[in-house]
Amino acid sequence: MTDYRFLKACNREPVDATPIWLMRQAGRYMEEYRTLRQTYGILDIIKTPELALEVTMQPINAFDLDAAIIFADILPPLEGMGLDLEFIKGTGPVIHNPVRTPADVEKLATPDAREALSFTLEAIRLTRAELDKRQIPLIGFSGAPFTLASYAIEGGPSKNKVHLKSMMYNEPDAWDKLMTKFATIAGDYLLAQAEAGAQALQLFDSWVGELNPDDYRQYVQPYSKQALDMAKEAGVPLIHFGTNTNGMLEEIRDAGGDVIGVDWRIDIDVAAQRLGDGVAVQGNLDPVALHAPWDELKARTKKILDRMDGHDGHIFNLGHGILPTTPVDNVKRLVDFVHDYTS
Amino acid sequence: MTDYRFLKACNREPVDATPIWLMRQAGRYMEEYRTLRQTYGILDIIKTPELALEVTMQPINAFDLDAAIIFADILPPLEGMGLDLEFIKGTGPVIHNPVRTPADVEKLATPDAREALSFTLEAIRLTRAELDKRQIPLIGFSGAPFTLASYAIEGGPSKNKVHLKSMMYNEPDAWDKLMTKFATIAGDYLLAQAEAGAQALQLFDSWVGELNPDDYRQYVQPYSKQALDMAKEAGVPLIHFGTNTNGMLEEIRDAGGDVIGVDWRIDIDVAAQRLGDGVAVQGNLDPVALHAPWDELKARTKKILDRMDGHDGHIFNLGHGILPTTPVDNVKRLVDFVHDYTS
Repeated sequence: MTDYRFLKACNREPVDATPIWLMRQAGRYMEEYRTLRQTYGILDIIKTPELALEVTMQPINAFDLDAAIIFADILPPLEGMGLDLEFIKGTGPVIHNPVRTPADVEKLATPDAREALSFTLEAIRLTRAELDKRQIPLIGFSGAPFTLASYAIEGGPSKNKVHLKSMMYNEPDAWDKLMTKFATIAGDYLLAQAEAGAQALQLFDSWVGELNPDDYRQYVQPYSKQALDMAKEAGVPLIHFGTNTNGMLEEIRDAGGDVIGVDWRIDIDVAAQRLGDGVAVQGNLDPVALHAPWDELKARTKKILDRMDGHDGHIFNLGHGILPTTPVDNVKRLVDFVHDYTS
Repeated sequence: MTDYRFLKACNREPVDATPIWLMRQAGRYMEEYRTLRQTYGILDIIKTPELALEVTMQPINAFDLDAAIIFADILPPLEGMGLDLEFIKGTGPVIHNPVRTPADVEKLATPDAREALSFTLEAIRLTRAELDKRQIPLIGFSGAPFTLASYAIEGGPSKNKVHLKSMMYNEPDAWDKLMTKFATIAGDYLLAQAEAGAQALQLFDSWVGELNPDDYRQYVQPYSKQALDMAKEAGVPLIHFGTNTNGMLEEIRDAGGDVIGVDWRIDIDVAAQRLGDGVAVQGNLDPVALHAPWDELKARTKKILDRMDGHDGHIFNLGHGILPTTPVDNVKRLVDFVHDYTS
């Protein structure tokens, strides 16, 4: 198992070529996915292990990717906690009963992930069996405590996170209880995914870039650390990813993770230098660059690879999820070029 | 004139107390403003010098601020270029004929700011006369070439800036022409504001944080530099502000400006150290922190001031514009505390 190029890079071991996978690599930019979505909703796919398997494999069948990531979403764990989640077309996910008061926090359940999220764990078992035949490792993932709390409190898209920060400022005890619950949920869920067969785990802190470093250190870092410490028990590589965090990369690193994912808003060698020798680095092509003509896209890709030349522990990825408007041809060319250029 | 505390700090001269002003300090969080807006639209106020004067003075009358900023918007310069701008309630600004092709770029006019934006220049003259009596300096401003181009191309709110980046990637010649036009418009407008009486000028690059540093260096920095070089002729301090730019603060600085504005996503002393001794630093309280109880807000303010203690050239500000939901009492307390604590 540890012979996989992707897992070796996570552990900063030498590799024969730079591994590549793409955040949201299964999704709307692929025709196979759009076809399936004409019949099924996102939650239908996530909750039907055979469909989740099928979607997870779509990009694996189409491209020479070095890892699969289980098709799931960061929000279903909220349902088991008692939150009423709905994906509304055009708006995105909405929580109909958002958490706004200390009493709301008290009411939140912390169910066992093995029961509440059994569908994703079963999807992982099915997918792992399939991937073993192809010699490709599988990544599991969870939203980070802060990002889960953001959705739970804001209840929908939110520009400034005023509800969230207000709870942080005004109700520090409730905040601590809330974040402890989410840390438990996230850590337990990651661990359960590894038990089910995930060979690496990624913690997504997609919204943490709205915080200043002081708030991160006080109100978030201890809980991300708690979740990552729980997940560490699984003995598989942990990837820790945030966006808009270039003012506090060191704080993200210090919360834990064998690999730190960085967005495209920084030169990756500058990020790697700031992060130091103790972690691998994942990133960091601008997802919009996949819309460029191939020569432009190649030049951008080459720059990232050149910057990480000689640095054991680089996993090529985008700086955020792939966009639905991405041309499939460019994805294929990107994946092949990363391998060809570095081998 | 150079005896003003705010202007001294811009020039990194010792001050008797840290100066403070707030981005969007005239606005919806103030009852006086909301009352006026029941009768007038935003563009009505901007285009009627007497009303722009009145609104500019509202926060000056209410708080002990160290500078006024002329009430205007970054978008009216687009109208003179031939773009059809409308502020739509709930959506924000919309351009009905966005720039999408090289032919669209060719068609864009570059009118003299002294004619096309005479209303703001007249508002500056009126306001300057009023402010001189109060011994308070006046700031003028413009959107940066990239941010103006973003609005012109996207035509409205846009998450990923795919149209914008596609033109950058696919039409480098049209991009150069477009950015040269916007650099000329921005630089000329800044210069005209100084001629009309503005004692400092701020270039807002609100959207530049969507770029990677390579794209910034190649496609944006030369044009921001061009605009700032034009404005430099005025001989007044220049403030250069972007958000989500903590992965490329050095690049922002190198484009020009006597003062670099930083958002709240970085410790301000870390930002100041990266920026070096050649520039003053403006920032960087999280605008949402103004929603905190006073003790929390005070603690956060104190941290910023402590971090900049002994650093000549700190202008206290928010890390972005003040939010409409901000409690006015907290603004008053913040302004007074910054002065009390540092004098």
